[in-house]
Amino acid sequence: MISILPVRLASLVTVGIIASAAWAQQTDPLPSWNDGPAKARILAFVKSATEQGGRDYVPPAERLAVFDNDGTLWSEQPMYFQLAFALDRVKVLAPKHPEWKTKQPFKAALEGDMQTLAASGEHGLVELVMATHAGNTADEFAQIVRDWLKTARHPKFNRPYTELTFAPMRELLDYLRTNGFKVYIVSGGGVEFLRVFAEEIYGVPPEQVIGSSIKTKYEVRDGKPAIVRLPELDFIDDKAGKPVGIHKFIGRRPIAAFGNSDGDFQMLEWTTWGPGARLGLIVHHDDAAREFAYDRKSPFGRLDRGLDEAGKRGWVVVSMKNDWKSVYAPAR
Amino acid sequence: MISILPVRLASLVTVGIIASAAWAQQTDPLPSWNDGPAKARILAFVKSATEQGGRDYVPPAERLAVFDNDGTLWSEQPMYFQLAFALDRVKVLAPKHPEWKTKQPFKAALEGDMQTLAASGEHGLVELVMATHAGNTADEFAQIVRDWLKTARHPKFNRPYTELTFAPMRELLDYLRTNGFKVYIVSGGGVEFLRVFAEEIYGVPPEQVIGSSIKTKYEVRDGKPAIVRLPELDFIDDKAGKPVGIHKFIGRRPIAAFGNSDGDFQMLEWTTWGPGARLGLIVHHDDAAREFAYDRKSPFGRLDRGLDEAGKRGWVVVSMKNDWKSVYAPAR
Repeated sequence: MISILPVRLASLVTVGIIASAAWAQQTDPLPSWNDGPAKARILAFVKSATEQGGRDYVPPAERLAVFDNDGTLWSEQPMYFQLAFALDRVKVLAPKHPEWKTKQPFKAALEGDMQTLAASGEHGLVELVMATHAGNTADEFAQIVRDWLKTARHPKFNRPYTELTFAPMRELLDYLRTNGFKVYIVSGGGVEFLRVFAEEIYGVPPEQVIGSSIKTKYEVRDGKPAIVRLPELDFIDDKAGKPVGIHKFIGRRPIAAFGNSDGDFQMLEWTTWGPGARLGLIVHHDDAAREFAYDRKSPFGRLDRGLDEAGKRGWVVVSMKNDWKSVYAPAR
Repeated sequence: MISILPVRLASLVTVGIIASAAWAQQTDPLPSWNDGPAKARILAFVKSATEQGGRDYVPPAERLAVFDNDGTLWSEQPMYFQLAFALDRVKVLAPKHPEWKTKQPFKAALEGDMQTLAASGEHGLVELVMATHAGNTADEFAQIVRDWLKTARHPKFNRPYTELTFAPMRELLDYLRTNGFKVYIVSGGGVEFLRVFAEEIYGVPPEQVIGSSIKTKYEVRDGKPAIVRLPELDFIDDKAGKPVGIHKFIGRRPIAAFGNSDGDFQMLEWTTWGPGARLGLIVHHDDAAREFAYDRKSPFGRLDRGLDEAGKRGWVVVSMKNDWKSVYAPAR
């Protein structure tokens, strides 16, 4: 009798799951999306990947979806939020670094001189990140980010940065997970920055966040083991680095990729190349009224080649203005 | 009525899961383990981490367990299985490299001169790995490993390497997963070597395998995107590299670690330091009759400091001879 019990209960479990799934399909899983070709493509893709016995059925273990973060899951204007964090850190750390008053790019950062800062290029930005993101333990750094997020406000919307996530994209994350997808963030941003809040605001656990990183070392300090952050680049998870990061961390090819800039081009290409159910999607920022409008000329989130080639590659281009009923969730 | 249905079914699901768990506890989850202190410690740890309302309860998302591979999940004598693969690859590739006939460490590899090979040290081994593991695409490399595993046989047991996994450890993997743990492999071995077979023989998907790696680049070859393997070290996932690898890939601290050599020392230290439910376990190879007996002096899987400090650090030392009813599953 006892040995039969789990089998019978397992049947009830199965029936329960199937009935719930059937019920879920009757409600709109993407209520913040206007009906139109973008939404239709998403729904069709999920249906084809999950339909038992269908030609394009994908087993759950291979239902992997990758999302860029800046500009795809939350805003990235007037500058990447992590850059705002770095600039605030320069101000906090400045008293310990009197030389920064005359040394670039720190001088520009302290003076809010964005033009000089931008002119310092990638080399300048890397220097800035090293000076503000390294030299502490992983636990200490996470706490610094946590504290910053509590008080920092976006200059245009005057809201905490963590409230500036896109409601339609959060619905999409949930919709994919409900359909057995494992969702990853694959960002050019710093992995240890992202992991502080990814679980709370996106439901994505730390082990499903891939990003740029600096090197770390393991050290026992006063009998207490710690991960210490070093001022040395480890990995840049952007452009051709994104498929490399995906291969490094996941070890197999996703079937869906979501981005918004040319930094996501290779990730979209790598994901959508090949047969079977595939989805590539680009969020196009064309909504100056509710968010920002930018593409080919923007220093942050430049979208140029992606816009040219989306059509012939079969990638969905989402118009924030036309395809989304709302952009952010209402202020809490 | 429809809106109530999922709630009622959800209750049935919950009841089913709880009833199944209660039933599972009545059977022995570790039948290949003899009753004794090692098995008792494992059972007590899992109970304390999973007991709802208990002092040491750990939520499922934080139930992370990390396993070394060589010597912990499968054998590693008379040499690491991946080294046997590399030596076989040297033979296959030799016709294209006439210079290897006179150049070390390749000459030693071709002549089976293990003493000279060992004397070439880490530098020699790295050279060997670069020459045999790089220069192809990730897909090509995986196929080479797959083909090798089909025909290669262990010199002592004359069985495929993939059959030389430890039955008691595979039970332990299942037992932890049944109790809501997420199980990772954290190995000094090559991550792309391990990922070829980890899912099939351990049930561990590629994204839960952490290992040493060489650099790769993304390339579109003849219109087809590929990950190309470069002859350059990326990361050594051994000793102090193991906590670094865990932090890099998982981003939070596991609560259980399983190893067998001093290469696992820092992983055990990092995992077991701190309060709450923690388990550190070392597999001690003391079974010359059924497997191999080695520890402090072995070139592969040396266990010295771990043996000295396990007691004071509260780590379980498993005697393969006394704690395990069987070592391998019977030959198929």
